Amino acid sequence: MRKYVYFFGGERADGNAKMKDILGGKGAGLAEMTNLGVPVPPGFTISTEVCTYFYKHDSYPEGLEEEVKEGMKHIESMMGKRFGDPENPLLVSVRSGARVSMPGMMDTILNLGLNDETVKGLEKATGNPRFAYDSYRRFVQMYANVVLGVPHDEFEKLLEEKKKEKGVKLDTELTAEDWKELVVKYKELIKSKGLSFPETPEEQLWGAIRAVFLSWNNKRAIEYRKIHNIPDDWGTAVNVQAMVFGNMGEDSGTGVAFTRNPATGENEFYGEYLTNAQGEDVVAGIRTPLPLTKRQKTREDELSLEEIMPEIFQELCEIRKKLENHFRDMQDIEFTIERGKLWLLQTRTGKRTALAAVKIAVDMVKEGLIDKKEAIMRVTPEQIDQLLHPMIDPKVKVEPIAKGLPASPGAATGKVVFTAEEAVEAKEPVILVRHETSPEDVAGMHKAQGILTSRGGMTSHAAVVARGMGKPCVVGCEAIVVDYEQEEFRVGDVTVKKGDVITIDGTTGNVILGDVPKIEAGVTDELNELLTWADEIRKLGVRANADTPHDASLARKFGAEGIGLARTEHMFFKEDRIPAMREMILAETEEERRKALEKLLPMQREDFMGLFRAMDGYPVIIRLLDPPLHEFLPKEERAQRELAERMGIPFEKIKEKVEQLSELNPMLGFRGCRLGVVYPEITEMQARAIFEAACRVAKEGVKVIPEVMVPLVSMKEEIKLQREIVKRVAEEVMEKEGIRIEYMVGTMIELPRAAIRADEIAEEAEFFSFGTNDLTQTTFGFSRDDVGKFVPYYIEKGLLKHDPFQSLDQSGVGDLIRIGIERGRKTRPELEVGICGEHGGDPDSIDFCHRVGMNYVSCSPYRVPIARLAAAQAAVRNE
Amino acid sequence: MRKYVYFFGGERADGNAKMKDILGGKGAGLAEMTNLGVPVPPGFTISTEVCTYFYKHDSYPEGLEEEVKEGMKHIESMMGKRFGDPENPLLVSVRSGARVSMPGMMDTILNLGLNDETVKGLEKATGNPRFAYDSYRRFVQMYANVVLGVPHDEFEKLLEEKKKEKGVKLDTELTAEDWKELVVKYKELIKSKGLSFPETPEEQLWGAIRAVFLSWNNKRAIEYRKIHNIPDDWGTAVNVQAMVFGNMGEDSGTGVAFTRNPATGENEFYGEYLTNAQGEDVVAGIRTPLPLTKRQKTREDELSLEEIMPEIFQELCEIRKKLENHFRDMQDIEFTIERGKLWLLQTRTGKRTALAAVKIAVDMVKEGLIDKKEAIMRVTPEQIDQLLHPMIDPKVKVEPIAKGLPASPGAATGKVVFTAEEAVEAKEPVILVRHETSPEDVAGMHKAQGILTSRGGMTSHAAVVARGMGKPCVVGCEAIVVDYEQEEFRVGDVTVKKGDVITIDGTTGNVILGDVPKIEAGVTDELNELLTWADEIRKLGVRANADTPHDASLARKFGAEGIGLARTEHMFFKEDRIPAMREMILAETEEERRKALEKLLPMQREDFMGLFRAMDGYPVIIRLLDPPLHEFLPKEERAQRELAERMGIPFEKIKEKVEQLSELNPMLGFRGCRLGVVYPEITEMQARAIFEAACRVAKEGVKVIPEVMVPLVSMKEEIKLQREIVKRVAEEVMEKEGIRIEYMVGTMIELPRAAIRADEIAEEAEFFSFGTNDLTQTTFGFSRDDVGKFVPYYIEKGLLKHDPFQSLDQSGVGDLIRIGIERGRKTRPELEVGICGEHGGDPDSIDFCHRVGMNYVSCSPYRVPIARLAAAQAAVRNE
Repeated sequence: MRKYVYFFGGERADGNAKMKDILGGKGAGLAEMTNLGVPVPPGFTISTEVCTYFYKHDSYPEGLEEEVKEGMKHIESMMGKRFGDPENPLLVSVRSGARVSMPGMMDTILNLGLNDETVKGLEKATGNPRFAYDSYRRFVQMYANVVLGVPHDEFEKLLEEKKKEKGVKLDTELTAEDWKELVVKYKELIKSKGLSFPETPEEQLWGAIRAVFLSWNNKRAIEYRKIHNIPDDWGTAVNVQAMVFGNMGEDSGTGVAFTRNPATGENEFYGEYLTNAQGEDVVAGIRTPLPLTKRQKTREDELSLEEIMPEIFQELCEIRKKLENHFRDMQDIEFTIERGKLWLLQTRTGKRTALAAVKIAVDMVKEGLIDKKEAIMRVTPEQIDQLLHPMIDPKVKVEPIAKGLPASPGAATGKVVFTAEEAVEAKEPVILVRHETSPEDVAGMHKAQGILTSRGGMTSHAAVVARGMGKPCVVGCEAIVVDYEQEEFRVGDVTVKKGDVITIDGTTGNVILGDVPKIEAGVTDELNELLTWADEIRKLGVRANADTPHDASLARKFGAEGIGLARTEHMFFKEDRIPAMREMILAETEEERRKALEKLLPMQREDFMGLFRAMDGYPVIIRLLDPPLHEFLPKEERAQRELAERMGIPFEKIKEKVEQLSELNPMLGFRGCRLGVVYPEITEMQARAIFEAACRVAKEGVKVIPEVMVPLVSMKEEIKLQREIVKRVAEEVMEKEGIRIEYMVGTMIELPRAAIRADEIAEEAEFFSFGTNDLTQTTFGFSRDDVGKFVPYYIEKGLLKHDPFQSLDQSGVGDLIRIGIERGRKTRPELEVGICGEHGGDPDSIDFCHRVGMNYVSCSPYRVPIARLAAAQAAVRNE
Repeated sequence: MRKYVYFFGGERADGNAKMKDILGGKGAGLAEMTNLGVPVPPGFTISTEVCTYFYKHDSYPEGLEEEVKEGMKHIESMMGKRFGDPENPLLVSVRSGARVSMPGMMDTILNLGLNDETVKGLEKATGNPRFAYDSYRRFVQMYANVVLGVPHDEFEKLLEEKKKEKGVKLDTELTAEDWKELVVKYKELIKSKGLSFPETPEEQLWGAIRAVFLSWNNKRAIEYRKIHNIPDDWGTAVNVQAMVFGNMGEDSGTGVAFTRNPATGENEFYGEYLTNAQGEDVVAGIRTPLPLTKRQKTREDELSLEEIMPEIFQELCEIRKKLENHFRDMQDIEFTIERGKLWLLQTRTGKRTALAAVKIAVDMVKEGLIDKKEAIMRVTPEQIDQLLHPMIDPKVKVEPIAKGLPASPGAATGKVVFTAEEAVEAKEPVILVRHETSPEDVAGMHKAQGILTSRGGMTSHAAVVARGMGKPCVVGCEAIVVDYEQEEFRVGDVTVKKGDVITIDGTTGNVILGDVPKIEAGVTDELNELLTWADEIRKLGVRANADTPHDASLARKFGAEGIGLARTEHMFFKEDRIPAMREMILAETEEERRKALEKLLPMQREDFMGLFRAMDGYPVIIRLLDPPLHEFLPKEERAQRELAERMGIPFEKIKEKVEQLSELNPMLGFRGCRLGVVYPEITEMQARAIFEAACRVAKEGVKVIPEVMVPLVSMKEEIKLQREIVKRVAEEVMEKEGIRIEYMVGTMIELPRAAIRADEIAEEAEFFSFGTNDLTQTTFGFSRDDVGKFVPYYIEKGLLKHDPFQSLDQSGVGDLIRIGIERGRKTRPELEVGICGEHGGDPDSIDFCHRVGMNYVSCSPYRVPIARLAAAQAAVRNE
């Protein structure tokens, strides 16, 4: 005969953790805990097969009734109570439990076994009539609702009437007598429907079991299964378990505990406890709980559980060890002491701070509980991110006035300014607030504590630059109206003037008035150790996007193994350089242009020398000039006039040039290698600066590995022409400098056509770096500066699962990447392939990069630790 | 023994047209003509095998010398002249001739056989000593240069000296005696190099043969073969052929003729003739040639060849018939009459006007010479284009002041205006000159004769709209500086003021000062007949892009089988509609928006009813609102203030809305279906207008086939949401109107992601229409409005073979289309696929569309005839 009922209790269970299919998740877990020797209130699980049978035959299988009866007897004997005993009644809970958790979808009934008789026993046992009758009326209501189908609100109406009658507002103001009267009214209501509340506990039990099985096919459960692809024929198990009470006197109580400190990760027992109380009392916060351990005590006059009930505490300590050894992770447990007897109600993996997550993972490896791979999987990349940036104290409740996109993590506070110049000149910390930022604003951004923009997406200029600087940034905050003229921004009725203090939270996108308490960032030894393990495990290289020697050094400190993207144009915006750059742009002949470029050459060379030195032994990818030239010219007439005067040329000439260079869609305009194709002398100068720098630094004994990257290539001919120039100049320079250096010339793949024609392009390109920012823009037709108008709506409505500028669109953009790699390596099997878009620092995207066989990812210095971890996780996940 | 020499002459040849491999193209052609019975000057061909042998062994194969000698004897006997005869010498030409034509790459020697003795015979025979000695000195110079390697310019120097000595400027002013003296000097020059000019004709002949073989491996020939993928081991043949002279007296002469009238295509013999002259005299234009036929005569006092030499003319007429019957196309022939004997020197396919091309093709089918497919292949799509637009008289020499992109064909003349308003108000024909145009300018564009812009590419707004209107347009004319303030445009030193008359040629891109004579357009019966045949042959459907009932009717007249793209937004720009549109945009609540949309509904419905009526029985694809909303708001502050006043709302509100809607890259911004997703009520209104129109027109007895097209889809969820709305509204309307209509809801595939995810998208889309304008923009990362800065340079430098906005980039964008169709049809095998970008009217792109299995192409009405022809040609070509 088949077995339908699986008993658990008293350190022995019929089932175990592996039997989820027939016991459901909850039933298997209860069995497992029991087998571990943890004192779990006894009970039994009716298998999922009964559910299937029930739906097939509209009846229960033969023998079930007997087995349930047997189960109840077991519980009674373990608890020393009897079901229906008017003196000291056994009460049980009846809960659903499918193979996978379907939280809140199916029904639960608590305190089953109460009736007009047994309620008295409960009153006696707890010495708390109010509790007893409240429990009773709750049970009646729950049962009537779940099993009999009486609408919930009809009971609520009666409750409201009672409170009105008594002239009180809160449930807690009602007395035992009131509850008792309500029970009568509830039963009358039930009767008025032609129904009846079963007074015998057995009848109650079978009613509840049937209701739980039926709830497998309620509307929301069916809907939930459809969404989560759960087969309808799995069915649910039913768990019947003894209720225990912590409010049965001074030898009773209830508490919660963590097996390690969830804030710091210290290997210490940590928790809270209330004497003579039920779990809900802890949650309600009416009484102040006591500390679990002596160590935890903050005042001499309070007692810990360790002192009040040393034996129980000892038992708990052993359970703690058992659970950790078994689950090999920090546990969050709930327990109840009923008349000197300890019961564990629940154990689950404990939530913890980022700091604790890292410490626990590393400690557990050292304790031999887990291996390094498991440790790697225990810490989320987001936790690493938290550790690297100051954050708003999670204990503080903030009231944001607006919410934008969380573009660069961390919290920052400062006075509001509206121009980059003001930021540069400010004596106090400032937050730079703009519609959007442009390369002209970089100095001001550097000076500001944080940046807030009303427009732009996750890869807008502000977002990219701020992340590169590791600076908090909120972008695309469309709710705020920035008014440069009035020097203020408005959100609804709130007006924030220049000089007002605000806080922005780049981790959440919140904008908050005034200052807010923060937790400072801190990299610990444990984190470093964990990341070293990650380095051993991961297959992907991790490089950094760094434009300056300072950023490069920072990136090395964070563990970057080279530079994946150095944007040469950022160098041109410096105050001492932009004049020569503008001269170059305003040149009317090649000769004039070459003269201006001559001035830029030594400055670029200097920068590159610094990058090479900082990356001794590691590759440095330098991208040739990329942005449209108009970005280097001032936009405002006043600034144009000033420039004209400074350069000694007519204002009209500048105005005409700006006009001539202006574009309707600059993103798709005269930029990238198109500049170098039309003005080869620019490429020539940059190549010269790169190789002069490389040769000179190499002579200092530094190992230089330059990789020259041609941006925005859409056809083989472009990279061919540019590569010819670079190679010619490289040969010339190395000849002259008398030293030979290994180098590569490659291309960014950031246009769909480049991915499609990758086979041809790889004939000329020695490496590929996927520029997924632009590739996402062109593949979706989304301007990263303009998506604020609809992408948030798309995400809200579920059209997009996430912002494709934040996490790679693996099925669309990703398919183009896959095609690009496949075709590129068909031509050149050893082709080095990486990613240098913002996605290079996003864990999901890194997993994708691992799967499609890239050689490395590159991200901003502050994300390097995250990428190291995420790359290791990808390796473990895809082993 | 192998045969090396193939004789031709006297209606019999050893070879024929099929023997190109060993005789070369020219040799095979001469043999073929001879076999046809056409009197070709006799000669022989030394086979390409000799060339191969020569390069392999550095000598000639055994027996060649004998065969050549034999060949020369044949020529002598046929011509009745003797090689080296001082009385009446046989002269020959020695020419190269490879399997495929390599024009001008190898060497040629004429008049071979002249020496100090034979020149006297030539003098006697022609009675023209000047001609004889000029021929002689030319031969010496050519031989010395080609065979002996004496540089050309050293002879030219001697000639210059002689002219100086004689005090004359032109060669024609030198006398026979002068040429005779020059021959002596030439020979001295040769001797001074240690070389000698061979006096015996035999020696000359072998020297020339060797030189021609050697020229197969000269530098430019090798280069040419590399470019055109011609194998080096093919080798060249050598053709030795008797020279004939038309200047041997009044019974001699020379002429050129077309077998049909090349201007009109009439089936009449047509040509020119000069008595006692050589071919170069006709070309030199010193003497006025006589007409070939009596019919051609324009004056009574001139004589035609038909009258002067009736027998020769009769012979020519027979040859004409023979050649046409053989080549089955109109021929352009050269002939010479030497002492009453007719010789055909050349026949080739004759160039003809577009008009003639069509007439000849159609006539020849009726004459049974060719079949319909061949007729279809005889006319180029460009010729059809010419027939549909007025063009600048090709006989007039124009001096353009600037050249832009030929955006919409045809020539137009008018006074320059700089604003659309001025164009609308103008009483005289105007040319609208702008930096670029925007939807606001459409009324002005409609009124203008033509449009000229300084910016933008082949698919910029101006280009697309002008083509749609069939109006001449030149765009991206970067050379002109348009100055709105001064009301003028400048090109170098030239300033063109408002009101000045200019002519633009949209076929070439030329901009010309003043008026220029033009040829009017004209569709003939023959063209209609040809296009009817094209319709029988083609597999692709041809639809039109038409936004108005007027355009739709026009498209039907041109043979369109439906509308492939109706842009609903063009309707909103009309003066009576834009207020409601603006109201909709400025609405702050959905309710306000719906109110404004209610006003637009009847207008849209009206438009759609017109479209459906015009397309009775054919499908009409209506695209939902596509452009970004800011396009509908005025850009200038003045206009914004006016609008505010008219609408009775504060100016600031409009300014703020414009600001809020402004985008950095509008092409990639809040447009297309993104509008309909965020504001479903817009889609709802448009769907209602479409189906109300469809139902009402259907009740009139018209067969309506609406296809609703969702633009700019990048993910399945977008088309899913939009389609749900359309289907819901369609059901509602059909229910209410009490009539059912078949319809489809589909999508444009105009973003790379849509092509990549076509399998998913096809789950929701019932048809695909490739929007190749935007697909090209996003695939290349080229903004069609901004490419003027580099695409012309790319084309000039050969990076791009053509403008990808004009002719589809088949290997890049095309590959995405291929992927899109493949994936789409995997999901929905019967998926209807078409193209509605500008490429739908480009013949090469149409060929591509045929090859990838599209169902139809759609183009502007004026290109429908071109597309019909091109589609038929694609079908024939890919049979």
